[in-house]
Amino acid sequence: MNTLYNRDLLCTQDWTVDEIERTLELAFDFKARRFDHPLNNCLDRRTFFMFFYNPSVRTRQSFECAATELGGHAQFLEPRSMRLKSAKTAGETVQDAANVMSRYACGIGIRVLETALEYYGQGHELLEEYARWASVPVISMAHDRFHPCQGLADIMGMRMHAGRDPRGKKLLQVWAQGALVRSWCSVQESILINTRLGTDVTLAYPEGYDLDPEVMRWCEENAEESGGRFEVVHDLEEGYRRADFVYSRNWMTSGFYDTARERGVEAAKQREIGLAARHEDWTCTSEWMSLTNDAYFMHCGPVDRGAEVTDEVCDGPRSIVYDIAESRLHVQKAVMALTMAVR
Amino acid sequence: MNTLYNRDLLCTQDWTVDEIERTLELAFDFKARRFDHPLNNCLDRRTFFMFFYNPSVRTRQSFECAATELGGHAQFLEPRSMRLKSAKTAGETVQDAANVMSRYACGIGIRVLETALEYYGQGHELLEEYARWASVPVISMAHDRFHPCQGLADIMGMRMHAGRDPRGKKLLQVWAQGALVRSWCSVQESILINTRLGTDVTLAYPEGYDLDPEVMRWCEENAEESGGRFEVVHDLEEGYRRADFVYSRNWMTSGFYDTARERGVEAAKQREIGLAARHEDWTCTSEWMSLTNDAYFMHCGPVDRGAEVTDEVCDGPRSIVYDIAESRLHVQKAVMALTMAVR
Amino acid sequence: MNTLYNRDLLCTQDWTVDEIERTLELAFDFKARRFDHPLNNCLDRRTFFMFFYNPSVRTRQSFECAATELGGHAQFLEPRSMRLKSAKTAGETVQDAANVMSRYACGIGIRVLETALEYYGQGHELLEEYARWASVPVISMAHDRFHPCQGLADIMGMRMHAGRDPRGKKLLQVWAQGALVRSWCSVQESILINTRLGTDVTLAYPEGYDLDPEVMRWCEENAEESGGRFEVVHDLEEGYRRADFVYSRNWMTSGFYDTARERGVEAAKQREIGLAARHEDWTCTSEWMSLTNDAYFMHCGPVDRGAEVTDEVCDGPRSIVYDIAESRLHVQKAVMALTMAVR
Repeated sequence: MNTLYNRDLLCTQDWTVDEIERTLELAFDFKARRFDHPLNNCLDRRTFFMFFYNPSVRTRQSFECAATELGGHAQFLEPRSMRLKSAKTAGETVQDAANVMSRYACGIGIRVLETALEYYGQGHELLEEYARWASVPVISMAHDRFHPCQGLADIMGMRMHAGRDPRGKKLLQVWAQGALVRSWCSVQESILINTRLGTDVTLAYPEGYDLDPEVMRWCEENAEESGGRFEVVHDLEEGYRRADFVYSRNWMTSGFYDTARERGVEAAKQREIGLAARHEDWTCTSEWMSLTNDAYFMHCGPVDRGAEVTDEVCDGPRSIVYDIAESRLHVQKAVMALTMAVR
Repeated sequence: MNTLYNRDLLCTQDWTVDEIERTLELAFDFKARRFDHPLNNCLDRRTFFMFFYNPSVRTRQSFECAATELGGHAQFLEPRSMRLKSAKTAGETVQDAANVMSRYACGIGIRVLETALEYYGQGHELLEEYARWASVPVISMAHDRFHPCQGLADIMGMRMHAGRDPRGKKLLQVWAQGALVRSWCSVQESILINTRLGTDVTLAYPEGYDLDPEVMRWCEENAEESGGRFEVVHDLEEGYRRADFVYSRNWMTSGFYDTARERGVEAAKQREIGLAARHEDWTCTSEWMSLTNDAYFMHCGPVDRGAEVTDEVCDGPRSIVYDIAESRLHVQKAVMALTMAVR
Repeated sequence: MNTLYNRDLLCTQDWTVDEIERTLELAFDFKARRFDHPLNNCLDRRTFFMFFYNPSVRTRQSFECAATELGGHAQFLEPRSMRLKSAKTAGETVQDAANVMSRYACGIGIRVLETALEYYGQGHELLEEYARWASVPVISMAHDRFHPCQGLADIMGMRMHAGRDPRGKKLLQVWAQGALVRSWCSVQESILINTRLGTDVTLAYPEGYDLDPEVMRWCEENAEESGGRFEVVHDLEEGYRRADFVYSRNWMTSGFYDTARERGVEAAKQREIGLAARHEDWTCTSEWMSLTNDAYFMHCGPVDRGAEVTDEVCDGPRSIVYDIAESRLHVQKAVMALTMAVR
């Protein structure tokens, strides 16, 4: 029996380790038999709705591609062209939208983060409200708190190169400078799923870049349960030393939404860019990588080259960024098949 | 022989009662065997073009879903991203666009209403021009005058709950307050198809909210022919009393387009909102519903809760709004199959 | 063995005459057996990415339709809704975008011309950069220099009406007035492929409307090799006399991008419109057509009626504009099948 059938996916933390493993196993299967898998037609003629409150490159491409490869179709929907109720305008409630969409579709994907929101956590609340009313699975396509499909793809990429057993392997999850003012979702998902599965996770960032305290607590609990480790450092040398994987990524401070509310989004972005620029050491370079255990370089994409990582590292022989990007397709096919088709 | 093959659908009034019944019958069939119907592949590899001059929630979702479920694909096209000729700009004529599209597609859907237009009736003229030049069916996806697929879905929803025979059953089609300044299309389609099929229709609205006089005349003729009734009242109590169905929906005054031309669209909207707000009794509440014959609550969606209807009624046991929304999918599959595939 | 497998198509000039002929042959085959061809499923579940830096009517319709008819799916992507790196903003590089897309898709189509560019040739450079990094075929969907699928469709339309042998047949490729400020791509592609295949090509335009000198040189070389002729005239009577095909189309002066850089895009457009308006004779009329050998009227669409051609000619019995438009579908199916599926 498939316990994932008709389940939502807002964060991998909501699924058991067995359920995560089952999903990864099917993803590897889909990769091995991309156009020749027994489940290749499991979404035959089915519609998956993709709601993009924020634009995206690979999330849209990989989800629409995943539905196509399973015989279904993903509709690309942008709220700007829909009359949904908001705080300011009349329109349809989430209750009505989710109920009606459940009559048409096999699942609903939602992306909402960054400047589409007024405070941290609002995106997660919106997904929870959709999930409450929808009778079909609601899948996060990245929201302010989590990015479960990215987390699954990270693990798939790591396993492709370093095998299935994470015990004793060190992942450095490191903040990086940059001008793109990223949400916390990919980073939080990575440290959650890695501590869950037993990787030793070192989270490194300059003072002032604290993440969600609840996620920190879960990471500690995860590590304890899985037998892995979880530590936070503010020193780059300590972070890079003997790492087996390095995942270098910019994220915003917790002050972003307050500033945006008070002084506008553009001012908030400029403030973040100014703050980030103070930490010019925080780029993943060959020098830093030389401290590692010949680590693989990871990133969720799109890569902000020159800020998050140098070309030399990103194009080097230990970079697995394209394999991780490709893995998005396979894990999403697995998530869709298991939550929407396989009973 | 299928008399609907290669026919347009601008209004159900253009089809015979037999053709309407055949469509509804196939729609119920599609519902019963959603992914297992002999016609499930009747649009195999075919393209249906959807032209959205105005944005939409469920019309886009349900049409694209319908094409997918029949093995075809619906292309979502927005004129903002196409170079069509307009009064102000050079570009392609409808003649050329419709002729070329007929070479690619099995059918063309068009949505044009509200602020995309300069006067009432202009949308219908545009559809007629497309229909004139296209050699494939042109289907209204809601335009200023009519919304035939909504009308068919309304009937399907009514029959799901109250059986096939409408004789002696009273539908209250009632104006409601609201800030969304709706076109007349859904309401006019509902009273046309209901008088056509023999329902007793009572149209209720405050003074000043007259609809299209030609549609009124057709409704009278329809009722005479079908043996149903058609009456207009301006009193809520009279309207609600002993109704079997209540369909509460806002619509604009006939002065909207004149005001928009003279003082701009925003001023015209504000004027409508101001006018509508004077009629605070005109919301469908449990109190009003208590006068009825335990009526079903109907709506074409999106529902403007708190204005057109209270949550209590809309979420109550006699609300059939989600079934009507679902019916959009089934009737549109039937319309597409009969006009584009079944010879 | 299919030498076109995994090849890019930026210009027909990059393909051998044999490869062009093979493509046209398959296109005629696809037309003859539109929904019943052995290759009808050759893109089964495959994704083709369409990048539209500029909007389009029939290019989007025909490419998405082509993918659907081959069993695949074309994703409609607009860079406005993607975070690609530009000169001004941080974002993903073409290197990363093309590498990742190659993991998801069987091919990448790109349209970039007119006001999306800062100088003539920049669009071609962008396509070359995509082609450099992508491991799947990159297909031009019209860029500043070339429009290969239009060129193939032109030939297909000509052959439908005038047979396969172009020897001794004269094509008049003539500049026309108009307010749409067209790129050079369709015209340059037409004279390249026609000289390549042996048509006698006369290019006619008023002084000041010179095209790309390198393309001119290639046309001369093509004509020499194919045994056709290539001449440039600035006189309409000379151009129309004894023509077998007339292709009347507006294009911009070479000064457009300089003016746009110096004084803005709108000023550059106005300047072009002003310059074009000086040449009021340069419209294809019945009078001019009476000088020809009962020529077929050709156009790539969308037709700017009243400027590029009169209604009388465009709607007349020798107009083949809709057949050429339809041919876009068939040649694009052939290009996709040969570059992405047939080994």
